[in-house]
Amino acid sequence: MKKEIGIGLAGFGTVGSGVYKNLVRNGALIEERAGVCFRVRRIAVKDLAEPRAVEAPEELFVTRPDELIEDPGIQIVIELMGGIDFPLAFIRRAIQAGKSVITANKALLAEHGREIFELAKEKKVAVFFEAAVAGGIPIIKAVRESFVGNHIECIHGIFNGTSNYILTRMTDAGLDFSPALEEAQKLGYAEADPALDVNGWDAAHKAIILASLAYGFWVDPAKVHVEGIENVTASDIRFADELGYRIKLIATIKADDEGKIEVRVAPTLIPKSHVLASVNGVFNAVAVRGDVVGETLFYGRGAGQDPTSSAVLCDLVEAGIALSSPKESHGFAAHDLYGDCKPVADSVSKFYLRLGVEDRPGVLAQIAGALGAADIGILSVIQPESHTGEFISLVLILHDAPYGKMLTATKTLAALPCVKSEPLLLHMETFL
Amino acid sequence: MKKEIGIGLAGFGTVGSGVYKNLVRNGALIEERAGVCFRVRRIAVKDLAEPRAVEAPEELFVTRPDELIEDPGIQIVIELMGGIDFPLAFIRRAIQAGKSVITANKALLAEHGREIFELAKEKKVAVFFEAAVAGGIPIIKAVRESFVGNHIECIHGIFNGTSNYILTRMTDAGLDFSPALEEAQKLGYAEADPALDVNGWDAAHKAIILASLAYGFWVDPAKVHVEGIENVTASDIRFADELGYRIKLIATIKADDEGKIEVRVAPTLIPKSHVLASVNGVFNAVAVRGDVVGETLFYGRGAGQDPTSSAVLCDLVEAGIALSSPKESHGFAAHDLYGDCKPVADSVSKFYLRLGVEDRPGVLAQIAGALGAADIGILSVIQPESHTGEFISLVLILHDAPYGKMLTATKTLAALPCVKSEPLLLHMETFL
Repeated sequence: MKKEIGIGLAGFGTVGSGVYKNLVRNGALIEERAGVCFRVRRIAVKDLAEPRAVEAPEELFVTRPDELIEDPGIQIVIELMGGIDFPLAFIRRAIQAGKSVITANKALLAEHGREIFELAKEKKVAVFFEAAVAGGIPIIKAVRESFVGNHIECIHGIFNGTSNYILTRMTDAGLDFSPALEEAQKLGYAEADPALDVNGWDAAHKAIILASLAYGFWVDPAKVHVEGIENVTASDIRFADELGYRIKLIATIKADDEGKIEVRVAPTLIPKSHVLASVNGVFNAVAVRGDVVGETLFYGRGAGQDPTSSAVLCDLVEAGIALSSPKESHGFAAHDLYGDCKPVADSVSKFYLRLGVEDRPGVLAQIAGALGAADIGILSVIQPESHTGEFISLVLILHDAPYGKMLTATKTLAALPCVKSEPLLLHMETFL
Repeated sequence: MKKEIGIGLAGFGTVGSGVYKNLVRNGALIEERAGVCFRVRRIAVKDLAEPRAVEAPEELFVTRPDELIEDPGIQIVIELMGGIDFPLAFIRRAIQAGKSVITANKALLAEHGREIFELAKEKKVAVFFEAAVAGGIPIIKAVRESFVGNHIECIHGIFNGTSNYILTRMTDAGLDFSPALEEAQKLGYAEADPALDVNGWDAAHKAIILASLAYGFWVDPAKVHVEGIENVTASDIRFADELGYRIKLIATIKADDEGKIEVRVAPTLIPKSHVLASVNGVFNAVAVRGDVVGETLFYGRGAGQDPTSSAVLCDLVEAGIALSSPKESHGFAAHDLYGDCKPVADSVSKFYLRLGVEDRPGVLAQIAGALGAADIGILSVIQPESHTGEFISLVLILHDAPYGKMLTATKTLAALPCVKSEPLLLHMETFL
């Protein structure tokens, strides 16, 4: 006779109903593998009358989420409600009540992870969050368990399918940002309000969680450099292509020699030969380099009902096994290492700089002079054939320099009379 | 005060000395994360006088491996000796003595896994084997834990770096098999006796372990179809290229609608657009499709001292955590599902067939006629320009057909007077 574990499901939207559907469909297999029996006892929704995409017995539904916490037969609460303040308060109460918690809420963990895991440690309950980063890609488990013997040297991730779809279409079809975004919206790959996806913050939440896990301290979101893809044009992608690069929205997580951590999400030039450059459409991927394992890469769907459900089911089985054979929980707080973030201004890389300049002799000399005065070296220059208008795009690839210094130099350039449009400055990753 | 766990290391070759080196180097981090303290108490080697690539205190070394088993201070035995009969007997005795066992021995597990895991279940000890498949790629953990909520639909793996290096060089530099193999040997990517690597059996051992794990029953090596890359020529790679394919040594693991499992290792044509086609050089990769998670891919180094050590260290921490907070061990036997392999002859796919034929009119008609009589459809034909000699290569892409039927038809073709050389028949995977 297998032990029965009671589940409370908070939220029955895309992911919540997906978890229920797949738990029912693959229930026999999951119980066989887990050695315990899972039973959904209550499902909390906002409105009982709202139509549901997946069928479930009517008597399971409640509108007051705390009924899940109050039910002594529920040992595991799965939070899939969305938002921040309400689920935070709910998860706090669930932990206080001694329930194991599973969540896919990346914004919540990125902003309140420290508090949640400290409370969980105090109350000796486990909090699981595989689904919060990169959906179906098991990257939390890989970084925490598989690479436990490694110092993580760096992580480069494509964590936002919407942005990656848009950049892929800009690359393959030569579209500009706006039509590519419209196409993504038509196909259901982008929300009506695409802000969080294209402004880099969705990817940044995931990067914060992963960096925190890899380096053992909670990364402060205020110390993370976040840029979206809104200012990338089809011609930037063409220029990058000529130079042997693709532009991707890359989350970069890196430890420097003194152990200072850099977390950055920005449209970034990466060499076409790197595997990340071939990750197209709505797919996500994460490249992890460890000091023992070397280069690795994980690829899959980062969002969507089913891939995210798969990650929640993994957490569910782990929570169930832990409950059926009690052991010291090893949630996030298990490795209380301490670290600090590197100031954004100190982050060193090569850069791509596009300037709209007057099309007349002497302009390049003036710009090269200003960069030289700022002690920034030029690796290469693309000065396209003269256009009919009075502007041309001048593209420069610049030597390794701290971001702060580059920003100052870019402002100096922007103030030159020969520079006619807002400069675009992009990071480059050469993976050396 | 952390609990101390005693380790016995059997074997101090490439992997054994790597595990020791990395455990010393990253020891503080590993103990912090694991919450237990690891101490290597004994290292078994064949010959105390043999020079060692990694330094370790002389007093740790013993020549009788059973000293590891007899030491009551050793709770975990790491078997990295190589061979089959001797380590099998050693692991049996270690399990009998109640030691947790870690091994990277793929041939041993592929041939004797059932026995080892049944004994481990009986004795309630855990056996770990992440390092046995694909080195640093954490594919065992992904299939067993991350995808626990999935029926695995199929797995396609590049599991042998030597073969992949050779095929990559044949593709990129147009080399034939023998010079590419020589190059791999010079670079240390292939052994002096490369048989196991290039004949497909190294990859087959890994496929057998992974298939057994994914489907919950031990796959009988006799039911696995194994072919090496020795008969692939530079012109096959060129023909495949013209048709939009790459030739890779692919391990294919698939469940059909009735749950029958097919395990096959063979040089296989895969579309250039598939991510596996971009896995080059000595790298390994595994694509896993689950019914919930969809398509995923894992990429990294499949062999070598450090990547393999990384996997052993992951197992070590897991074994240590399990020992420090006893719970029901969930080794392989945890999911006692039952299944069966599909007969090799029933395996259906498209095929690539190269025939050396006489260069005269009517030959194609004769061959097409024979295939038609065998009820095998032709998808496309490449008949290269006439050569000066009396042979030409005729390449046919054939419709989905069972392998058994294809083999019979190929034999019929080989017996035709117009067919002048041994036909080459390769599987194709279209991932549909």
